[in-house]
Amino acid sequence: MDIELQLAVENLLARYAHALDDDRLEEWPDFFVETGCYRVTTAENHARGLPVSLIYAESRAMLRDRVSALRHANIYEAQRYRHLVGATLVERQDARIARAVSSFQVLRIMASGETVLFASGRYLDRIRLSGEISRPQFEERVVVCDSRRFDTLLAIPL
Amino acid sequence: MDIELQLAVENLLARYAHALDDDRLEEWPDFFVETGCYRVTTAENHARGLPVSLIYAESRAMLRDRVSALRHANIYEAQRYRHLVGATLVERQDARIARAVSSFQVLRIMASGETVLFASGRYLDRIRLSGEISRPQFEERVVVCDSRRFDTLLAIPL
Amino acid sequence: MDIELQLAVENLLARYAHALDDDRLEEWPDFFVETGCYRVTTAENHARGLPVSLIYAESRAMLRDRVSALRHANIYEAQRYRHLVGATLVERQDARIARAVSSFQVLRIMASGETVLFASGRYLDRIRLSGEISRPQFEERVVVCDSRRFDTLLAIPL
Repeated sequence: MDIELQLAVENLLARYAHALDDDRLEEWPDFFVETGCYRVTTAENHARGLPVSLIYAESRAMLRDRVSALRHANIYEAQRYRHLVGATLVERQDARIARAVSSFQVLRIMASGETVLFASGRYLDRIRLSGEISRPQFEERVVVCDSRRFDTLLAIPL
Repeated sequence: MDIELQLAVENLLARYAHALDDDRLEEWPDFFVETGCYRVTTAENHARGLPVSLIYAESRAMLRDRVSALRHANIYEAQRYRHLVGATLVERQDARIARAVSSFQVLRIMASGETVLFASGRYLDRIRLSGEISRPQFEERVVVCDSRRFDTLLAIPL
Repeated sequence: MDIELQLAVENLLARYAHALDDDRLEEWPDFFVETGCYRVTTAENHARGLPVSLIYAESRAMLRDRVSALRHANIYEAQRYRHLVGATLVERQDARIARAVSSFQVLRIMASGETVLFASGRYLDRIRLSGEISRPQFEERVVVCDSRRFDTLLAIPL
């Protein structure tokens, strides 16, 4: 087991979660490499090998556009989110790439104060380790949601 | 603190959680040694020292029987589960055995798409470290559920 | 990345969570240094820099008083709690102090068996590392709750 790699990946996942929960959306694209891919799909579609994605972006520029759209629509700030991430399994693919799978849960805290379970699922990550190991980045993050039911707010980053 | 042991146990708990959440039930017995014991009880019974278990198996063969029964009854596939595990405390008992306690929460995602809190509690584990440290197995896993209310689906592995 | 420090802090957070969830309230003050500070606030107040705290204690003695009050009022034992903690980011400030931020979620399990989401948020910790690294203590723990809605039971330690 590669302890340093395990903790570097857990640290990446934790920084990502806090950036979203702290509403630091502008930092979100920087967790990806320039040509990084971000997809949201359902467990059902994923299991069937269906390429359908609810959300799809294949570059940091597209992620930046998404952030701009969210800021403009102003939907993100109306509520808070809280990500819990765990059960992180990491494997080194080669000198520059690691694969990780982890479980997540997202709570949504409404302006009224009510808290609801918003989403749960798995992150399937391909992570680039070039440069210093303490700052890995996503080449691909596939968010596989357990539920097939989504509401329109799913446009928020998961 | 034994860093390698800590991470090996966290890895075991993570692999166990993903196996269940990915519906790879057939792998479940292999997380236990041949004479491994699996029990589900409530915090109330556990605190009183009552030996009553809601679910009890004392060998890998019994766990395999349970998986067969679940597959036959077809109840497991009707919904998805998502385990979150954390707060893992590990202590080495001797060269071959570690003890661990951790907190868990299980979400159930219904076919309708609705997600509910299904169970929460503590795992109390006795873990055998023989062989390579990267592949420890449960000698005993006691699942202490916080709530005393269970529904009939509790037959699913926790 | 300081692996030993990271795991020592995660261990502190895990022991704290289990002490509360096991109803070992009397151990709670000992997670703090003698002049340790404990505050509960909301994300809204925290973001605005408002010093208002819902709960405030600035010494271990005050925390002990709180435990006595809780035991006397008998409100803590009527239900169970389950803390999930994750996404722990740790930074060493100097030789003796570390800063940590982590995400938490607390479930409340009612006597009836029903489980509800009780609270979620961030822990902002200043941790003293004097002595053995395996037993760090809180100089300050600020509990920033995501929701601004609290019920009267918030007097319980988070």
